[in-house]
Formats: sequence, structure tokens, C-alpha cells
Amino acid sequence: MTPLSIPDLPLGARVHDPFLVLEVDPRGGDNPFTVLILGNATGRIQTAPFWASDTPRIAGITRGKVVHVTGTIRPYREQRQVAVDSIRILPPGEVAWPGLMPSVGDVSRYWNDIDNWRSQLRSPRLGSTMALFYDDPEFRAHYQQCPASTSGHHAQLGGLLKHTWEVAQIALATARLFESADPDLTLAGALLHDIGKLDSYRWDGAFEPTVPGTVLGHVVLGSLLLDRRVRSERPMPCTEEELLLLQHLILSHHGKLEFGAPVPPLTLEAEILHYADNASAKVASMVSALQDSSNFLQDAPISTKGIWQLDRRRAWRGQSDWGRPGGNAG
Amino acid sequence: MTPLSIPDLPLGARVHDPFLVLEVDPRGGDNPFTVLILGNATGRIQTAPFWASDTPRIAGITRGKVVHVTGTIRPYREQRQVAVDSIRILPPGEVAWPGLMPSVGDVSRYWNDIDNWRSQLRSPRLGSTMALFYDDPEFRAHYQQCPASTSGHHAQLGGLLKHTWEVAQIALATARLFESADPDLTLAGALLHDIGKLDSYRWDGAFEPTVPGTVLGHVVLGSLLLDRRVRSERPMPCTEEELLLLQHLILSHHGKLEFGAPVPPLTLEAEILHYADNASAKVASMVSALQDSSNFLQDAPISTKGIWQLDRRRAWRGQSDWGRPGGNAG
Amino acid sequence: MTPLSIPDLPLGARVHDPFLVLEVDPRGGDNPFTVLILGNATGRIQTAPFWASDTPRIAGITRGKVVHVTGTIRPYREQRQVAVDSIRILPPGEVAWPGLMPSVGDVSRYWNDIDNWRSQLRSPRLGSTMALFYDDPEFRAHYQQCPASTSGHHAQLGGLLKHTWEVAQIALATARLFESADPDLTLAGALLHDIGKLDSYRWDGAFEPTVPGTVLGHVVLGSLLLDRRVRSERPMPCTEEELLLLQHLILSHHGKLEFGAPVPPLTLEAEILHYADNASAKVASMVSALQDSSNFLQDAPISTKGIWQLDRRRAWRGQSDWGRPGGNAG
Amino acid sequence: MTPLSIPDLPLGARVHDPFLVLEVDPRGGDNPFTVLILGNATGRIQTAPFWASDTPRIAGITRGKVVHVTGTIRPYREQRQVAVDSIRILPPGEVAWPGLMPSVGDVSRYWNDIDNWRSQLRSPRLGSTMALFYDDPEFRAHYQQCPASTSGHHAQLGGLLKHTWEVAQIALATARLFESADPDLTLAGALLHDIGKLDSYRWDGAFEPTVPGTVLGHVVLGSLLLDRRVRSERPMPCTEEELLLLQHLILSHHGKLEFGAPVPPLTLEAEILHYADNASAKVASMVSALQDSSNFLQDAPISTKGIWQLDRRRAWRGQSDWGRPGGNAG
Amino acid sequence: MTPLSIPDLPLGARVHDPFLVLEVDPRGGDNPFTVLILGNATGRIQTAPFWASDTPRIAGITRGKVVHVTGTIRPYREQRQVAVDSIRILPPGEVAWPGLMPSVGDVSRYWNDIDNWRSQLRSPRLGSTMALFYDDPEFRAHYQQCPASTSGHHAQLGGLLKHTWEVAQIALATARLFESADPDLTLAGALLHDIGKLDSYRWDGAFEPTVPGTVLGHVVLGSLLLDRRVRSERPMPCTEEELLLLQHLILSHHGKLEFGAPVPPLTLEAEILHYADNASAKVASMVSALQDSSNFLQDAPISTKGIWQLDRRRAWRGQSDWGRPGGNAG
Amino acid sequence: MTPLSIPDLPLGARVHDPFLVLEVDPRGGDNPFTVLILGNATGRIQTAPFWASDTPRIAGITRGKVVHVTGTIRPYREQRQVAVDSIRILPPGEVAWPGLMPSVGDVSRYWNDIDNWRSQLRSPRLGSTMALFYDDPEFRAHYQQCPASTSGHHAQLGGLLKHTWEVAQIALATARLFESADPDLTLAGALLHDIGKLDSYRWDGAFEPTVPGTVLGHVVLGSLLLDRRVRSERPMPCTEEELLLLQHLILSHHGKLEFGAPVPPLTLEAEILHYADNASAKVASMVSALQDSSNFLQDAPISTKGIWQLDRRRAWRGQSDWGRPGGNAG
Repeated sequence: MTPLSIPDLPLGARVHDPFLVLEVDPRGGDNPFTVLILGNATGRIQTAPFWASDTPRIAGITRGKVVHVTGTIRPYREQRQVAVDSIRILPPGEVAWPGLMPSVGDVSRYWNDIDNWRSQLRSPRLGSTMALFYDDPEFRAHYQQCPASTSGHHAQLGGLLKHTWEVAQIALATARLFESADPDLTLAGALLHDIGKLDSYRWDGAFEPTVPGTVLGHVVLGSLLLDRRVRSERPMPCTEEELLLLQHLILSHHGKLEFGAPVPPLTLEAEILHYADNASAKVASMVSALQDSSNFLQDAPISTKGIWQLDRRRAWRGQSDWGRPGGNAG
Repeated sequence: MTPLSIPDLPLGARVHDPFLVLEVDPRGGDNPFTVLILGNATGRIQTAPFWASDTPRIAGITRGKVVHVTGTIRPYREQRQVAVDSIRILPPGEVAWPGLMPSVGDVSRYWNDIDNWRSQLRSPRLGSTMALFYDDPEFRAHYQQCPASTSGHHAQLGGLLKHTWEVAQIALATARLFESADPDLTLAGALLHDIGKLDSYRWDGAFEPTVPGTVLGHVVLGSLLLDRRVRSERPMPCTEEELLLLQHLILSHHGKLEFGAPVPPLTLEAEILHYADNASAKVASMVSALQDSSNFLQDAPISTKGIWQLDRRRAWRGQSDWGRPGGNAG
Repeated sequence: MTPLSIPDLPLGARVHDPFLVLEVDPRGGDNPFTVLILGNATGRIQTAPFWASDTPRIAGITRGKVVHVTGTIRPYREQRQVAVDSIRILPPGEVAWPGLMPSVGDVSRYWNDIDNWRSQLRSPRLGSTMALFYDDPEFRAHYQQCPASTSGHHAQLGGLLKHTWEVAQIALATARLFESADPDLTLAGALLHDIGKLDSYRWDGAFEPTVPGTVLGHVVLGSLLLDRRVRSERPMPCTEEELLLLQHLILSHHGKLEFGAPVPPLTLEAEILHYADNASAKVASMVSALQDSSNFLQDAPISTKGIWQLDRRRAWRGQSDWGRPGGNAG
Repeated sequence: MTPLSIPDLPLGARVHDPFLVLEVDPRGGDNPFTVLILGNATGRIQTAPFWASDTPRIAGITRGKVVHVTGTIRPYREQRQVAVDSIRILPPGEVAWPGLMPSVGDVSRYWNDIDNWRSQLRSPRLGSTMALFYDDPEFRAHYQQCPASTSGHHAQLGGLLKHTWEVAQIALATARLFESADPDLTLAGALLHDIGKLDSYRWDGAFEPTVPGTVLGHVVLGSLLLDRRVRSERPMPCTEEELLLLQHLILSHHGKLEFGAPVPPLTLEAEILHYADNASAKVASMVSALQDSSNFLQDAPISTKGIWQLDRRRAWRGQSDWGRPGGNAG
Repeated sequence: MTPLSIPDLPLGARVHDPFLVLEVDPRGGDNPFTVLILGNATGRIQTAPFWASDTPRIAGITRGKVVHVTGTIRPYREQRQVAVDSIRILPPGEVAWPGLMPSVGDVSRYWNDIDNWRSQLRSPRLGSTMALFYDDPEFRAHYQQCPASTSGHHAQLGGLLKHTWEVAQIALATARLFESADPDLTLAGALLHDIGKLDSYRWDGAFEPTVPGTVLGHVVLGSLLLDRRVRSERPMPCTEEELLLLQHLILSHHGKLEFGAPVPPLTLEAEILHYADNASAKVASMVSALQDSSNFLQDAPISTKGIWQLDRRRAWRGQSDWGRPGGNAG
Repeated sequence: MTPLSIPDLPLGARVHDPFLVLEVDPRGGDNPFTVLILGNATGRIQTAPFWASDTPRIAGITRGKVVHVTGTIRPYREQRQVAVDSIRILPPGEVAWPGLMPSVGDVSRYWNDIDNWRSQLRSPRLGSTMALFYDDPEFRAHYQQCPASTSGHHAQLGGLLKHTWEVAQIALATARLFESADPDLTLAGALLHDIGKLDSYRWDGAFEPTVPGTVLGHVVLGSLLLDRRVRSERPMPCTEEELLLLQHLILSHHGKLEFGAPVPPLTLEAEILHYADNASAKVASMVSALQDSSNFLQDAPISTKGIWQLDRRRAWRGQSDWGRPGGNAG
């Protein structure tokens, strides 16, 4: 089912749709009220105030619940809000999640590429080790849904798969430039580096870190997952030294201790993986920052302030068509 | 002329060849002597001692001179040295530099790719601006010789061109993953980012920083070169705002102020360029560190100590053939 | 025309004056309203609320516009506000900017000193190079208006000129202590170090960074300005090596890479300039912080919290007259 | 067998004893020679030079070998050296390691305390989990030999056990001060925090890092060891959430990301453990630095320079008997 | 007098009690009002709004005053507030401070331990020097009231004494593990390290830093106090070198320059003291963070965000009873 | 007595003079020998080797002793050395220190200026407080000899006085630019900021840190000196709050905690003092670095490597006469 397109709702439009509750925001001074921030895969909108006397109408509504809302779009200080006529919590069984959360959309192109690259691996034991995960239907079902972060880069359903696909491509492009790099091992690193995120986030509602994700971290969780999975096979699909190479790729991919890598990259492929991971994550964050119109005052070319996801840098929407016929800038 | 292969010289071999003087090293305690470190494009070797009484034989020999040496290879503490029978300084006119300095070898493949990418630019004004440099024979003649550093990554004749080619490929591979990125501008950034190195290094003998390279830095020198070259055309091949986009790419490519970027990357293409530049430089440094046997004790898998070029990380020569038939590791 | 003295307005006073709109601040909960922050060269004051129903009265009023206001001063929580009877946007042609923005006041004393110092330069080529800027009426007209920052030190009309004058004096006082320092070159450094700010800020209304100021930075903009101006003369008024000395002064004046200097100071005069620039900027910030009563709770000697402009240090208004007859403290 | 006391050897003494080869040091200028640094549990001494002509006598002798030496103690520049009459490599089977390496000595007191503390655990599942390691004879045999570092704090045979004992005591003393701290869990953290060092160091000869110790690090190796050991039991001796608590203690004990902790301490017991670990390690380093007379010029109270193990701080041998009868200082 | 237990007040309860005014908080938009935050040793609660028309009722009420309040407990957004019928400022003479401020409670156990430890000192001159402070009734009266910080660790009446007692125990437990440590000097360091806090904080009302505490800092204030006190005795109770040892303990106890230690620890006892001080302060902060329910959303195990007192770490309320009969967790 | 000018000694010259022993350097391989580095106020030179057989001739000679040497200047690898015929230790009573150590020379100009500035103080209590030190003959006798560091900036006899004079001038020049700065207090800060160095260094022979200088630091030693001296007067020459202002100047003059300031500057005068102190110290270091020919290879404009005293920056000897008649550079 295609979700309602929130950014396209005109003033006066009627809504009669499910929304994910993104925030429950109590506000106001002497005359307190509550505003809900509602969203789906296409965007977000806030409700008109629920006054103290309306409290019973929103009883039990918390962040991460899905509600069915009937109401009207009204203007509010150069923005729009939805004046709610009726609102009720949808039972989990009735929720169609895919339309409600930000999503990368169709993931088949990512799977196609990844499976194709795997099929070209020239290293039998490496292929078998990857297959422990990437031929496992349950792994695939989870992996293609998991976000790559809760509020940073690729914070979307399927974001982890998309990020993996980007990292693999940048890493392979880099490995091909250096004769002594092993492209098969580089690909394996891309495929494994973030598997610990499967245990680190929940995406059944709002994206949230899990307890293990917070207290062990996705880097170590990935290492534990790999260790358990490889050792559960008899015989192991790879040797102990080969396992060490793979573990090192996972554990070093954050590049430096202060960024959460227990060890820095010490092999060529680990170094390549680290920069590819960084490039995917940081460039994706820049894409988001530039597309988020709330960072910019109307048509201003420079963002109004430093942006959190860019380590407090500003962003510049500078571009040109360079004289291209039908170019993308004037 | 193919230079003598220094790594292949057996004990007892006679040499009768030109060498670049890499170091003039006075040593010893009460009985002082001098050792020369000689090199060519294939490697380096030291001489037997020149005692105090031999001083006149090496008068005038300094770092960066080229000498013609006749002598014999002798053993010295598990290494080899050359016992010199005669040595004389070659006049500049007689020096065949290409065989004497570390070099990336044939550069035509890099030019072919770069010129091919340029021919596919869809942006007329961008193409014209690149052509100011890349169609200029004098620029090409210098650019294909210049090293990318004096003792770090790509410290070879042609290293700058090779590095440019690597950066362009990684950057283009990255840009293709993000719809909102402009691949033409990304390529332009790769082609321009290090042009200031032409004024920053000397490679007529040993690689040395120039005074402008030291006191202004290659980042700003590149910015000044671009400004002068573009403004010397009437009309300018691009607009002022377009020039700003290109200047920003040059000035921000080091990524952070503490790494020498006067401004951090604020556009998508600048962010992509920064990570591509980093990947090329850091991975090339790792390749060198792993190939330099002096970092490792015999067959030890881990380097004996932290390696300067890797920010004091150790390097691990871990690899495997993963069961490949005829694999690269046992 | 002398602007209205905002700090001296008594309760009940009538205003009938132009003001610069410093902020347009939408506030409130269920009953939203907008407050304008108005200012002129003497201070700032806020308006009474414009309720939703008043919205048409302030349509089109944005930060940086100048408005003519008729109204009355009223009390509001230990502060004053202006209850607006009528308000209208002044067309640019009717605006008398000097009275509306914070200003250093009469700049002639700064010009007198600077021109006097220039006249005493013993270095002909240095004098000619300075004259390219400092004898240019257009440069002078802009330079004496430009602020030295948008919201930090010397954020006033004429602030850049005043800062230059301070830096020159501290730098000359320092240079005179060290025989090997060249006072002429030191003065030149002071005069040139911040010329790039002319292209970095706008002061036609609120102080704002320009796009080039944000994406290239004032340090490099200064370097580009100098390069273009010197090279536009035939013959150049100084030699290439002399130009390098001047460029190095501009490029290194922030002292460290992490503070935005592409190169650190490597000459004696560059080192002197850096500390003089720092002293002027940081001491001016401390003066402002100590004079800003909003940093202190009534007569409290210590500021209520760390102050942004002082890198989060608190400020202490400790002083004494030390027994002076008619001293400045009890 | 009690090893020869190296510090007590008088000039002229004859030695006829086994030594561990600590360094093989080629030296000299034109007349090269080699010196061996020999050691045992009591100290270290160097040999007289082996000249080029003596080379065959020391063929095959490398760092970490054990040699039997016959010779005489001679003076050499205010130090002593051993002039070697005969030297031969001992086959591994003939080597009595305990006398040859620095050692904490008798470890039974540490075991007694640790086993006693374990017996007082009030938490059945915690006791069973500890017993997986601490009741395993093989674990005990290795644990009581392993050093706590290769050249830093507790770099001695048995150093890891001694460090564990110290950490446990400091941690328990701290936990007892805070009612909400769980002393049992604190003890468990002390016992488990460094188990990964068993796989990180070799102590069969010189202390050396292993490949896994270098490329995964002891923190993660400990986490993997615990995961495998606990999961190999059916049923597991503790719950999944309890395992998480233990893993968090191991993974966070370095306190900060930049010190190699993939996650910082987030529980009370993890915070306690981190400070106890730090106190044991840093105070032990200070003890060593103060006892190492090579850090001090004769009786100088302050070390001659910053000391590596103390993060480049100097050390001060200041003390007093404060008027105690028979005090330790005058 | 036992203070009213604020956390136990039911809805509808009547209060007729003294409270410390913790905050005077003006709020609201167009219809401004003021809320008071009131507290005593048991907790804090806010008042219902005082509207503009109520302003005279709260005239003169500022942070740190003590007021007598009559009113009723009412519900307010899942919290409680007190609707005030009457409020009046209590004159200082009528204030019973102990019941009004957070407090460690009965301090006699801390004094008992400390005095007992002092009685066991084997060092006469050290004992006499400690007695200058710890046998001085005025010192004791102040010391047992002073908080250890204004809003960080041990920010309670008596907090400094409790912190001292904790530091002494951790430091003594550590010193006992290292034969070369002097336990007497270690205890002295614990007793003296924070005496400068007596001059650094005020606790007659809200906890506030004094001017000397802000502009000299408690570390140096402690050093000055010790210097003056010791030198005021004729003869001095210890030697000059002994005084140096004590001063070094005070001045180095923050461990590193960036944490405010003018010198880092250079003796064994100073190193021990530093880690004990850190352990007490940081673990106490973790205890507070875990007990503060406002850090957690209902029963969530992980705090909702990074916590200021923990350097922005989150806190995890993970625990278990590990199978203990009647354990503290399910 | 004018000392022998070491830099001017020609080859073959005879010396018959006293020298300070700067280093006793044992060297060599199998044939060990010792070299002495000798110096006086004009420079330094090394001796020819003392072989093992010469040992009795240099018995008892250590760093900091003064020796009388008879010998001849000989060439040694492009340097000169003194071949010693006879050498004997001079008893302390015979040593004329002023000629033997680096010195700022005549200090009367510094005293004249400082005393003149003091005489113009408009603040009676400030003048009296300064006089406690600056009218004390013993203070003056020590202060005019003390170096400002042992091996950094102004490491010369009288260096502290010269540095004080520089700081005072830069600080006064800065204070005069800011109306709200108190020039009297600024001068007082300059005069007092480094008085603690009197207790921190020894200059009776080589410059060495004292134990108090190392374990308390000159910043706190200055604070203690001021406290004791002011409090020893009855009545105190200034008030307690005034003393606080002076203490704050001393304690904050290093500017930041990480540079050893227990508190950062919180007043205007403290901020001015900090930058003036920095300017004097850093510019003086740059002067030394540029004048030290050992930093440069012959006429090279850039130093051969990063220089320790400049925080590892290189130095550039770039200068020009800018067309001055009879200019200082070509």
C-alpha cells in the first residue's frame, strides 16, 4: 500500500490514515497542552494542540505507537498541522510498517549486486564463510530491513543493506587500484563489517538502540556473531588465521580507537574498508543535510548554522550546470 | 636505459654505473669515516667506509648529486655494501634522471584514462577550465614527473599523476552512488586538488620541498594557480560562482582544519573528494609499509614497531589464498 | 544624525524613530505571537507582542530590514519594551545606516595613526605595496566600515579598522623589543592580515558572512586579493620573494592549523603578528564580556556562567582603586 | 633451582650458568662487533664484544634463546660485563624457565585470596560462571604464568595474576563504600577483565605479543573467550542478560574509547572496575619507575628525564621518616 | 527536627513548612508567570504559577532564601506541584538549615574512622601536622558541613567529609598493596587534598562557589591554607622537605594539567591519591546518575540521553540477583 | 673580566682559560673514550677524546663544574675541538661565573625602565605591594641573575629580568588600547607573574630546576611567595580582595589549564598579561631558533627539520631590504 504523501498535503485536505507517532511533546506555560509529531515513510507533520481537557483522547499514546487519525490540514505559522477529529491506537497486528517508516524502497537491486559479487568470488573458503550469513533466509530478511543508524546516516528501513552495497562498491573500486590488495577479502569485509547492527537496533516502530547495542556496541556484537556462526560449523568453513583476518576487518573498521575501533586497521584490506565505510556514511550524511530544507532559510545557499550530522560544519548548496544544455542549475 | 637492478646484485658483482647520492653520512668514534648511501630507481645500497685519508675522493659529493661508481659488492653484517674503486660526480648534462629516482614507470595509462574522462565531461565550461591545465603541454610535462610527496605516499616520479588517477577513480565510484552528486564536478576536483604540488616540490635530484611549498603550502598554492590561470583568460572560461566551487574543492580537500584545510568540505563533491584523496594516500602508504621488508623481522607477520607513515600503527602481513587453486598464500 | 539613545529611554517615553530589525522572534504556545528585537548604534530593545491578529502589521519585516516605529516605552518583567503604535519598512534609500548599527565611532584617529606609520616606513618597495591598498579611496571607504567579525570581537562598523590599528600597535611594540625583527615588515603584516574580511562580510543591514567568506575563508581571500593586486601592477611593486613574505604573514596569522591557518608562522614577523592579532581579538572580547550586564546577575562579581566568546570561561569584574584618590573602585 | 644473583656478582667472579638472551646488539663503526644482553629472574648483564672473527661462536643466537655461558666478570666503564669463554644454546628441553625470567615469585598467596573471595560469593550463577575459568586447572596453570604486559606494568611471570589480585582488592574496597554497588559482580569483573591477555602474550622466552593479541586486542579476545566458554555449557551457568553484564565489564574496563574500550563504563560496577584497574596499573608503573636506578643520576631526587611508562612525567624519590623511630628516610 | 518528606507527599496533602528556594523561574509567553522550585533535604517540588498579579506575593524571594509555605499538593502533568496559599521569607535567625539542604546525614561514623586512622599514624611529625587541622574544632565544624562540589559529586552538606573518608579508604587499600608506598603519607594526602574547598564554596543557602574558589581554585587555596597554617607554628611541626611532600599531594591530586593540577603526580603516594580521589568522585557521580529517575524513561534500562555528570555517557541500570535467594533483582 | 670568545678561536690557537663543563659524554664502541663539552658566556666547544688511559685526568669532572684548561684548537670534521694538554677543576671560590654562562649582559637598562614605570604608578597600595619585592636588595640581586627557563626562552643569566621587561612593555602597550584596562594592575601582573622562578631554578653552574620548581611549579611557588610576603607585613599593604587580584594574575598567566595555569584568566588584566607573556616567550624562542646556525644547512632558507622550541615548526630565514638603501638583505 502506498502511504499518504505528507509533503504533498494541501491546506484543507482531509486525512484518514495511519501514522507512526514520532514524538509526544508536552508544551505550554500556564495552559499546558500536548502536540503529537506524526510521520510515515514520506515525511512528518504535527497535530494541533491537545489541551488538558483533551488528555483522555491521547491516553496511552507514546513514541513508537501507530495511530489511525481522521482530521484536517490547517495552517500554523508558515507550516501546516493536522487538526485531529479522531485518533486511535492501531493494534500491532493491523500495522503496515513498510509505509510508515523512512525506507530505502525496493532492495532487490542491492541484493542482485551483492549476490552477483559473491558469485564471482575466487576464494572457496571465503565464499562459504559469507554464505553462512548471506545464504541464510532469516539473515536476509532481517538485514534488508535493519537501518544503518537510529538517527544518523542511512536511518531508514533497508539502510543497512544500502550502506553495505555502497561500501562494497567504494571498497572494490579502491582495491582494484592496488595490485597487492585482495578484492575478495575486501568484499568480505564490506559484507561483514556491520552485521553486529542486526543486534544493535530495533525497527519495530521508531528506530531505537537495543541494550546489547548500547552496552557492547555493534562492532563487538559483529565480532561475536561471526565467531559463533563460524564455530558452529563442523568443520569450520575457514581456518583460524582466516577467521582472524575477518575479525580484524570488523573490529578495525571504525579506523581509530577514539571512534570505537578496539584496534586500528593493520592490513591493506582493513585500511581500504575503513575509508570506504567512512565515505559511504559521511557522504550520505551530507546528502541528507543538503536535502533537508529545515537546515536552510528559504533559498539561502549556506545553512543557517552548523549541522550536527556534519560535525557542526555548515553546508553549501552551491552548484552549477556549467553550461550544460538543460543543466541542473541556472 | 634500464637502470642496474640493485636488489639483484650478487656478492662479488662488479658495478660500473651511475647512482644518485641519497645520503652522505659521517660516522664513527675516534676513527671517523664517511659512508655514502647510493640509489637508483630500483633500490639503494651503501658504500664501504671512506676513511679520513679517503676524504679527497669524496670531496664535493653531497645529497642529490649523481656519481659514477666503479666497485665490487661485498658482504657486511647480513647486508651488502659496495667497495668503491673509483667515484666521480657526473655533470648535470650527463645525468639520465629517469633511471635514478623512484618512479611510477610508464604514465601513459594514467593520461589515457584522465583524457578519456575529460572527453566525457557533459559540462562545457568545466571542460574548458580543466583544459587550461590539462591541454597545456608544459603543465603535462611537469605534472607527469612531480611526486605526490617528498617522503610519504607516492613519493615517486609520476607519483602525483598516479595519485590523481587513483583519486579520480575512487571519487567517481563514490559520486555514482549518490544521485545528487555531480560527477563532472567531482572529476574536476580530483584533477585540480593537488596542482599546487607543482610549485611545492623539486625533483631534480632528491625530492625536496620548495620555499613556497613550505611557507604557503600546496593547498593555497593550488588556489593561487587556479585563480591566476582562470583570470588570465578573457572571457573567463567559467563564472565567478563556478570558480568558487572549484576553489572550495581545492581548499577543503584535507578535510579538517587541523590537517591543513583552511575550510572544511561544505559541498557534496568536496566531501567525496576528501574521502577519495584520503583513501588513495593512506592505502598507498599501507602498501609501501607492507612491502618494505625493513619494517619486519624476517618472516614475522607483524611489523617490529609502529610505522611513521601509518601514524605509528603496526602493519600485519596477514593474508590467505582462501583455498584458491594456485592461491597467493599457503 | 545622532541616533536615539536606547539605553536612556525612560518608561513612558515616546519613540518616533528608525530601527534596524535584529530579530523576528515567533513565540508562545497555544496563543502564538511575534516579538521584534529592534536596535540602533546605541543598543537594543524588544517590542510588545504582535498577536496573530496583528500579523498583517509586520508582514514583510525580516532580519536586516530597517523600520520606522512610533510607540511608547512600557515595563515588562524588570525590562522595558516598546508598545508599537505604527511600524513601516523604510526603503533602502531612506536609511541612515551609521546611526543604526553598532559602530566604533569616528575612525579618523585610526587613519591618522596608520597613515603616519606608513609614512615612516623605511622600505620603498614595502611602502609601494601597502599603497596599492591604503592609498586606494575605494579600499579605504570599505575598510573603514567593515566589521572584524559578525558576532565576535569588534563586531561593529569600523571594527576591522580599529582592530588593525590595535594589532599594529601591539605588533610594533613587540617588534621593537627584538633587534632582529623588521618593524616595517611587521607593520605591513598588521595592515594586510585581515584584508580578506572585506570580501567575507556584508554590513548593509545585519552583519552576515558572504558565500566566499564561508566557503574560502577570510585568510585565503586575503591571500588571493594580495596576489591579484600586486600582479596587476607592471612592474610589480615588490619582488616575488617579498610577495612570499607578505603572503606568509597573511596565511599564518591564525597561528595554528586547527585555528584555520593553512601554515603556521615560520618567520619572526609572522610570529609577532600572530600574538598581536590574538591579543587584540581576545582582549576586546573580554572587554565586551565584562561590559555586557546580561552576563552578570545584578552586582555579582562573577558571571553567571561560562561565556561563549571567552571559550566558556567565566568573567570576573574584580577591580580596585588601590587607594588612588578618586579611584575607579571602592 | 635458585638462579644466579646477577646484581651481586663481584668483579672477577666466574659464571657457569644459563641465561636468557634479551638482546643481540650489533654495534661499532669500522670495526663492527656484537654484544649480547643476558638476563635471568634477578637482573641483566652484557657480554664483552664478539668481534667479527668471533661471529661463528654466536651463530644462531637470537633474542629469546637460552644459552649456557662460562666466563668471567670484568669492569667496563663503571659497569660490569661478562667476558665469555664458552657459550652454547640450550635445547628447549633443558631450560628451567622460572629462574630465567622476571617473576612475581610465589603466587600461592594470590590464589589463596582469590579462591577465598570466590568462596564467599553470595551469587550462585556468578560463582558457577567464575568457576568455568577459575576451577579449570589448565586456565590456572596459564594464568599464573602470564605477564600483564610485555614491557609495561607487571611485565613479569605471574604478573597477570598479581595484577588481578590488586584490582580485586581495590575494586572491592571501593564497592564496599557504595551501598548500591554489587560486590559480587565487582569481583567477577576483576577476575574476568584481563582473561584475554592469555591469548595476547607469549612468555616462552622473551615476553612478546601474539598475532591475535595485536590484531584483535586483549579486550575483545577476553570477550570472545567468555562468550565461547559460557555458551559451551548446557545449560548456560548464567542468563543472557547476566552474560551481558559480564561482557560489559570486560569491554569497558579501559574506560574510554581512546584507550581501547569499545564502550565506556555504563554501570556502577564497570566504573569501579575501571578505576581499580587503572590504579593497579599506574601505581605499579610508578613503583617500577622509582625503583629503576637508571632513571636517576646517582642520588638525584628527581629523575633525569620524563619516563615513558609514566606518560613522560618525571618521578620524585621524595620521602621522609616523619620522625618515626628507625624511619625509612633521614 | 526531621524535615517534611517531599517525595512522600500525597495529592491533596497540606503543607505548612519551611523550604529552601532553589530556583525562581520566570516563564510563559504573552501571559507571563513565575514558578518557584522549593526544596529541603529530602527532595524538591515546584509551585503552581504566580501570575503577574501575584507578583507582590513573591517580592524579594530569590534563590537561596528560605520561605515558610502554606499550601496544597495538586497534580500537574504526571508530576505534583504545590498550590501556595501563603508564603513568607524566614529571617536567617529562624532557619533550621540541616533539614533544608541535601545532606549526607550523620557524620559521626566518618569522624570516628578518620580519627581512628589518625591515631594509628606511626609518623609523629605527620600526626602533628594533621592535628593542626583535624584537632581544630573550628575546622571540624566547617569541614563536616562543606559540600564536595556545588552540583557535581557529593553536593551535599557533609559531602566533603564523606568524600574524604571514601578517598582515604580507597587510597589506604591501594597503598597496602605496594610495599614501597608510605600509608601514613597516603592518609595525610587524603585528609589534606581538598581542604581548599572550605574557602571555595558557600553552603549558607544554595551551594555556591565563592570568589576565591572561582579565581584561585580549590587546589591552590588548599596549598595556601597549608602553607599559612604550618608556618604559623613555631617551630614548624614538620620540615621544609616534608611540607613539600604534602604540598605536592594537594597540588597534583587532579592528576593532569588539563584537569587543573598545576603539577602531575610525581611520587607514589601522589599517584595513589589521584586515583583514589578519582574513584570516589566518579563512582559517586555514577551512583547519583543511576538513582536519579529523571535520567530514565519509566523502567527503561538505559538512560534517555548522555548524562552531564558522566561526561555525556549514558547509564545502564543493568543488574541481576544471580540466583541469590531473596536477590536484589528479578 | 671579558671571557674568551669561543666562536672566534682560529685553528691552532692556544687556550689557557676557565670553562664551564656543559656535558661529560662517554662514547665509542670497542675502544671507548670520553669527550667533554666546554662552554662560557660566548659559546661552546668540545674536547678531543680522552681515551681509557686518560681517565685519571678527568676524574671528578662532572656537569656543572668549572675547569681550567690549557690546550690547542684543532680541526675535526668541519668543526673545531680543543686538544687538552692539562685540565683541573677550579674550586668554587676561584670561579668568575659571569663570564662562564650565557647572559643577557648589562641589566641596568631593564632596571631603569622597571623602576621608572613603578615610580609612575598612580595606585598607592599597588606601589607598596610591588616595593615589597622590587625595593628589596636581596630580591633584586637574585632576580637580575635568574634565567627565565633552563633550556627554553631567555635561558640566560638575567633572562628573567629581561623577560619581565619585555612582558611589561607588551602588556602596557596592550592595556593602553583598552580604556577599561587598569595599566597599573597590568604592570603589577608583569612584575609578579614569574617571581616563583626564583625558587624554581639554580644558576650556580648549569641551569637546573630545583626540587620545589619541579614538584610545585613556578606558578604556585610565585603564589606562595606573594602570600607569605604580603601577610608578613602588619598592616598588609593591600586589602584581601586586592591580594586576590594579584594572585589571580600569577595563577592564570599560562592561560589554559593544559599549559599549567590552575585557573584561566578571568579579568581583563589577566587576559592582557597572558598574551604579553606568551608573545615575549614565543618570539624570543623564534629569535633563538633563527640565530642558531645548527638549525640550518649552510645557507638554506628553511630549517632542516622541525625545531623543538617552536613546537616542531620549521623556521624560515626569509627577509628582504625592500629596496632600502644599505638594507639588511639583498
